[in-house]
Amino acid sequence: MSNGRILSVQSHVAFGYVGGKAAVFPLQCLGYDVDVVNTVNFSNHSGYGRFGGSKADAAELSRIFSLMEQNELLRSERLLTGYIPSGEALAAVKEMATKLRKANPELIYLLDPVLGDSGQLYVAPDVIPVYRSMLPLATIITPNWFEVEVLTDVKIVNIATLRQALKVLHEQHNVPNVVMSSIPLKPWLKAVLPSRSWTPAEEASSDDDFLMCISSSRDGGVTSVVHAGRVPLIPGYFSGVGDLFSAMVVAHYNPTSPSILSDTKPLDTVSGETALSRAVSAALTKTHAMLKLTNDYAQALPEDQRLPTDDEADEKETNRRVRRMKGRELRLIQGQDIIRGVQAVTERKMELWHGFWAA
Amino acid sequence: MSNGRILSVQSHVAFGYVGGKAAVFPLQCLGYDVDVVNTVNFSNHSGYGRFGGSKADAAELSRIFSLMEQNELLRSERLLTGYIPSGEALAAVKEMATKLRKANPELIYLLDPVLGDSGQLYVAPDVIPVYRSMLPLATIITPNWFEVEVLTDVKIVNIATLRQALKVLHEQHNVPNVVMSSIPLKPWLKAVLPSRSWTPAEEASSDDDFLMCISSSRDGGVTSVVHAGRVPLIPGYFSGVGDLFSAMVVAHYNPTSPSILSDTKPLDTVSGETALSRAVSAALTKTHAMLKLTNDYAQALPEDQRLPTDDEADEKETNRRVRRMKGRELRLIQGQDIIRGVQAVTERKMELWHGFWAA
Repeated sequence: MSNGRILSVQSHVAFGYVGGKAAVFPLQCLGYDVDVVNTVNFSNHSGYGRFGGSKADAAELSRIFSLMEQNELLRSERLLTGYIPSGEALAAVKEMATKLRKANPELIYLLDPVLGDSGQLYVAPDVIPVYRSMLPLATIITPNWFEVEVLTDVKIVNIATLRQALKVLHEQHNVPNVVMSSIPLKPWLKAVLPSRSWTPAEEASSDDDFLMCISSSRDGGVTSVVHAGRVPLIPGYFSGVGDLFSAMVVAHYNPTSPSILSDTKPLDTVSGETALSRAVSAALTKTHAMLKLTNDYAQALPEDQRLPTDDEADEKETNRRVRRMKGRELRLIQGQDIIRGVQAVTERKMELWHGFWAA
Repeated sequence: MSNGRILSVQSHVAFGYVGGKAAVFPLQCLGYDVDVVNTVNFSNHSGYGRFGGSKADAAELSRIFSLMEQNELLRSERLLTGYIPSGEALAAVKEMATKLRKANPELIYLLDPVLGDSGQLYVAPDVIPVYRSMLPLATIITPNWFEVEVLTDVKIVNIATLRQALKVLHEQHNVPNVVMSSIPLKPWLKAVLPSRSWTPAEEASSDDDFLMCISSSRDGGVTSVVHAGRVPLIPGYFSGVGDLFSAMVVAHYNPTSPSILSDTKPLDTVSGETALSRAVSAALTKTHAMLKLTNDYAQALPEDQRLPTDDEADEKETNRRVRRMKGRELRLIQGQDIIRGVQAVTERKMELWHGFWAA
C-alpha cells in the first residue's frame, strides 16, 4: 500500500477536525506519505467563538520550505494547499508551489482557494489577488460557489454566467480542472441540469433539499467536459467538510488511469467519465457518507449538546455554542473504513452534462 | 470503532516520522480521537543535520491548554507526552497534566521522559528536575536505560542496581508502571534473565544480538510484578521508534481488561500477564515489525541512499547524511495494517520474571 507523497499546507487545530486535521489522516489511510506544514497552530476552530494559538508568518513558512528544499525533501508528487492566514504567507506558499511545478511538470496540485462562504469572506482581502495569480499553477481547484464569484468577478445567476465563470477560470487563469462544490440548487440551475436519472421524489424536491457539485475538465486544451452531481443537504453547520472533500479529490485523481483515453481527450466515451469526474464521484461519496455518520451521531446526543443555533442564547452562555460545535466535529476516526473504501456506502456519481456549452 | 480521546503533546516535523508524526497516525488507526498539541514545528528531525522551524514556548502552550480548558475540550481519558524542548515548556505541560489528573483520577497518563540516549543528553538539562517532579502524575513511564539512570541517579550495572532503580521509580516517585526499553543485553543481565523459552541459537547469541525490554507494574501498591522481553537488534539508526513504541503502549494499556483479576493484584495468575505486560507485548510486536519493514526497505534502496554512517564523508557532502536519514524513515503508511493488527507478524511476548525481587 503506497501511493507516493503529498505535501499538505494548511491550518492545524489541537482539538477537532478542520484543515490538516480533516485532510491528513484520510490521506494517510489511503496510503499517502503526507508531509505536513502547519499554517496556524490553534486550540480549535474559530466556530467555537473562543480560540487561539499561533500563526506561521511568511518568514517561518519560507524557512521550512527552504530547509526541506536543501534537504532534497521538497519532492512530493502531489501538493494540497488550504487555509493560509495572510497574503504574505500565501506568497511564500506560491513561491514553493512555483518551484515544485517547475521541477515536476507532472505535479498534481490541488489548490483550495479558501476565502469564505455564503457571501462572507473569512480571510484577509489581500489574499485574493495572490490566489488569482496562483491559479495557473494548479492542476485542480475546489472553490465553493462564493469563491468562484470572488475569483472571477462573475456573479452566477444563470447558465450563461455559469459558463462565463468557468471560461474565466479555464481560459484566463489556465486552470485545467475546476470543481465547484456546495452549490444551492436554485430553480434556474435545476431547469438546465441533466436530469435523466432523477427519481420522481427528487424531481419534486425543492431547492433546499440538495447541494450540487459541478466539475469541469479541459485537460489537453480542448473544450471542457462538464459533470454534475448532487447530494442531499444535511442541515446545520459542520466544519472541515470542504477540507476533507478537497483531500479526497486530490487523493483519488488519477490522470494516468488506463481507461482515460488520452491527454487531449479527457472524456472516456465508454464510461462517460473524466479523471476529474471519477475523483469527484469518490470524494462526494466518501465525504457525504462521513457527514451523514457525523449528523446521525450529533442527532443522538443529549439535548444540551445539540441545542439549535441561537446567537442570543449563545451570548448569555458561551459554552452553549462550544457544546454544539463539539458534537458536530467530523467522525473521521469512527468512520475511517468509509475513507478506506472497505465499508459500503451509498455511491454519489457525477453525471456527464451533455451540451453544457451549447448556446 | 471508538476508543475515546487521547491528548498527545510532542514535537511535529513536516517531513518524516518522529514525535507526533510517529504517534498520532497509529493512534488514529487504532480508533483514538487524538488531540494534537505541537511543542515544535520543524522541517524534519535533527538527525538530518539541517533542520529548523519554530518552538512553542511556555506561554503559547499554556494559552492553548487554557483555551481548551475554557472550551471544555481538556477532557481526554488518556494523555501522552513526549519531547518538550525546555524546562519552562515542560512546566506548562506539568500544570495541564496536574489539572487533568485532578479532574480524572482514572486518567491514563503515559509520560515518556525524553532526555537522551546512550549516555548523551539531547534536551536542556533544566528539564530533568521538572521530569522528576512530574513522575507521580504518570500512570506509565517509558524511559530508556540511560533515562532511567538520569532520573534515578542510579548507575545500573547488576541486578541489585536494576532493582534499586526500579524501587526509586516505584517508591520514591510513586510511578505505578515502568517500562524500560532498548536495554543492551550485557552478560550480567543475560545471566539473571528468565530464559526458559530461549532457543539454543538465542542461548549462544552475543550481547549485541538483542535488545531487552523490562516492565514493572505495581498497580495497587503491592510489590511490583516484573516482565522481560527481547527483540532481535536491527543495526543502524532509526528515528521515531521510541515515539511509536510509547504510543502503542498507551494505546494497548487496558487496566479494566476482565481477566486482570483486581486492582490490588496486578498479576493474572492464569496468563502470567499484567495489564502493563500485555500492552508492552503488543507494542513490542508492532514496533519491531514496523522496524523490520523499514529496515527491509532501506536495505533494498540504491547504494547512494544507504551509505553507512561516516562523519568525515558526511562533512564533505551534507546531503549524504540526509539521504541516509530519508531512507530510514519509518514505513508507517505502508505498514499501517501492522498497527491495525490485521497483518500477521511475529509475536514478541513479555515473560514473567519469577523471583525478580528475591535476594
